[in-house]
Amino acid sequence: MKKVIAPYAVVQKYGGSSVADTERILNVARRVAAKVGSGSKAIVVVSAMGKTTDNLIKLSKQITGEPDAREMDMLLVTGEQISAALLAMALHTLGLRSKSLNAFQAGIKTTGRFTEAKIKLINKKKLESLLQDNDALVVTGFQGVTDDDELTTLGRGGSDTSAVALAAGMQYPCEIYSDVAGIYTCDPKLYPSAKKVRYISYDEMLELAASGAKVLHSRAVEIAKRYNITVYCGSSFSNEEGSYVVNEDTMIEKVVVSGLTTMDNQTQVVVKKLPVDYTLLRSIFEKVAEAELNIDMISIINNGQDLSVSFTIIDEKKKHLEAALKKVLKGFAGYAIEYNTGFVKVSVVGVGMKSGIGVAADFFKALNNIPIRLVTTSEIKISCLMEEKYKQTAINALAKKFKL
Amino acid sequence: MKKVIAPYAVVQKYGGSSVADTERILNVARRVAAKVGSGSKAIVVVSAMGKTTDNLIKLSKQITGEPDAREMDMLLVTGEQISAALLAMALHTLGLRSKSLNAFQAGIKTTGRFTEAKIKLINKKKLESLLQDNDALVVTGFQGVTDDDELTTLGRGGSDTSAVALAAGMQYPCEIYSDVAGIYTCDPKLYPSAKKVRYISYDEMLELAASGAKVLHSRAVEIAKRYNITVYCGSSFSNEEGSYVVNEDTMIEKVVVSGLTTMDNQTQVVVKKLPVDYTLLRSIFEKVAEAELNIDMISIINNGQDLSVSFTIIDEKKKHLEAALKKVLKGFAGYAIEYNTGFVKVSVVGVGMKSGIGVAADFFKALNNIPIRLVTTSEIKISCLMEEKYKQTAINALAKKFKL
Repeated sequence: MKKVIAPYAVVQKYGGSSVADTERILNVARRVAAKVGSGSKAIVVVSAMGKTTDNLIKLSKQITGEPDAREMDMLLVTGEQISAALLAMALHTLGLRSKSLNAFQAGIKTTGRFTEAKIKLINKKKLESLLQDNDALVVTGFQGVTDDDELTTLGRGGSDTSAVALAAGMQYPCEIYSDVAGIYTCDPKLYPSAKKVRYISYDEMLELAASGAKVLHSRAVEIAKRYNITVYCGSSFSNEEGSYVVNEDTMIEKVVVSGLTTMDNQTQVVVKKLPVDYTLLRSIFEKVAEAELNIDMISIINNGQDLSVSFTIIDEKKKHLEAALKKVLKGFAGYAIEYNTGFVKVSVVGVGMKSGIGVAADFFKALNNIPIRLVTTSEIKISCLMEEKYKQTAINALAKKFKL
Repeated sequence: MKKVIAPYAVVQKYGGSSVADTERILNVARRVAAKVGSGSKAIVVVSAMGKTTDNLIKLSKQITGEPDAREMDMLLVTGEQISAALLAMALHTLGLRSKSLNAFQAGIKTTGRFTEAKIKLINKKKLESLLQDNDALVVTGFQGVTDDDELTTLGRGGSDTSAVALAAGMQYPCEIYSDVAGIYTCDPKLYPSAKKVRYISYDEMLELAASGAKVLHSRAVEIAKRYNITVYCGSSFSNEEGSYVVNEDTMIEKVVVSGLTTMDNQTQVVVKKLPVDYTLLRSIFEKVAEAELNIDMISIINNGQDLSVSFTIIDEKKKHLEAALKKVLKGFAGYAIEYNTGFVKVSVVGVGMKSGIGVAADFFKALNNIPIRLVTTSEIKISCLMEEKYKQTAINALAKKFKL
């Protein structure tokens, strides 16, 4: 690892379970105070307290089944503002100079897409100036403000994204705290002897996040990668050493496979006997994207006479997908669609695959006789789809084979 | 009453009990929709839902006994934002075009005194422009934003103040809805046959509000008076006709006494045998004001040799007052202080007193043999202090005498 000169400040993010109640907020305050005591100032990004967001959504549902996205954002942004104000109060009790800032005050400017806005810029100058007079600034995660003063939220993983964007904008290191003490080679609930990784590259983390790992959201990893920000992931409840998401170039020893993830409730969709018409194929994927349906493991087979397309989608979106496919295939005849639900996707990820030889061979050898329905690979990932009942056997075999 | 041309829009305010839960928010939405259906647009000012503010205060107390005023405001402003967003959603379900706006979006600029800010101006242009494209704007009451983007709250009666300030700024009529169907000559809980007044002047309302009536906060009345805004006070739960707070000049028939109020838990303070030194007297009142102690019914007697000062303060502030007096009287000798707690102040108010003769005589005649400890009068009010046990007798006698 390259040497880091003691930073002027650090960005820390504490998730919903870390600020679930006032007791935990006081705990976070003590951790921030320890950081400040060590000579660094802090920009602390907080999520809403535990169930706050769920309770706000519940209230909106009592009003209407289809809340307006703008008003939903007006409603939800209050959650982080509550935890931010309480954390600033808690920091005061420890003698720290602190102010809470909502997105408008911190100048976190976003696009205007309500519930799924993207951060455009932050007010670096204002934050730097406020840091002169404060030990810690508490900033509401998950939210932003448009140039028209509309309040927005960033969608899933929003607070992680806020933290990394602030770190990138301010050029500070970033620390993400949650109830998990780092990044594991495999979910310890599924494979109890899973190991914690010390260093993982952006691309590995991206593949892991996309395949189901929940420690750090992929949007946040993308920003970290783009701005070359090292992200530390640790526990807010212990002082156990966590994991670092880093630039691949700084990793001296690259393990072949650094992680294993699984995603349940996958539906395999197979569209057979389509005419060999790439315009049709394109419009299938376009319609699916328009319907905001997230599909994965796409494979296409052209046997000379016709096309077969296969991909996966999460079970609960199956009906939406059926409707979208019906629309785009209207007017075509002769094709057949199969839906098979209840599959699980198992993936192994590792930058070492790029240079490592025989990873695919080892992968299939480990899976032995498990019937595999679909396989896709990237430079650093191999994924396969199997029946739910083989999941645990596959996890154990792969973890053993790749020493996870 | 002067003729009013059908307004382009009206400002309506709904208090905490009117938006206590989502059922009641839907009820408010129906009332706003009825208003819009009658051809008027609406700016709807909302308080926080029922217990929200109390719950937020409770959270802050779990963190610290002395929360920072700035952070308290950051915390509390979320309450109105929640009810505003939910009301906008409810208005959408009725087919209305609506947007919720927090203080920053509505441009409600205030002074920087946290927890007790004063409104300086509103963004009339922005609100007018938003009203072009919407049937109803929902604005968070009780809060504002400073020129430095700091969020503030307006203190007690803040949402009433927001509503009247918006009405004044926009030059729209103002309607204040609560769980009480108007302004009564006397609290119906104390005097069940109390009558509702149809019209009441700003000054009468100010005296009533200052003497304990809770329908409309005195700060809001002051703004209404300054900008000559008629304020309608009605119930959000019925269509019963409410009361109008109006310019005295528009009232054709002025009743001598329009209202009676009481304030419990009053301590009478008597400082005797002070030197005849008006510098000392002034510094007594200055120190009391500095300590933010609200005193009332001040009377001073100069008997030639020495001064006696008497006034009232609410029981719970007695200790603070004692400390303040001790400080200012340090170095003086020979004086004596008496504190008598548990008194009640009974006041009658009416613009008709200005021209009515013998009101004081009728007042004392009605009170008959009740021992009165202190009397103060203004142009339109007579107040007297008595023991708690005489309160109900006094109310009944005065209400009967002045036909309340």
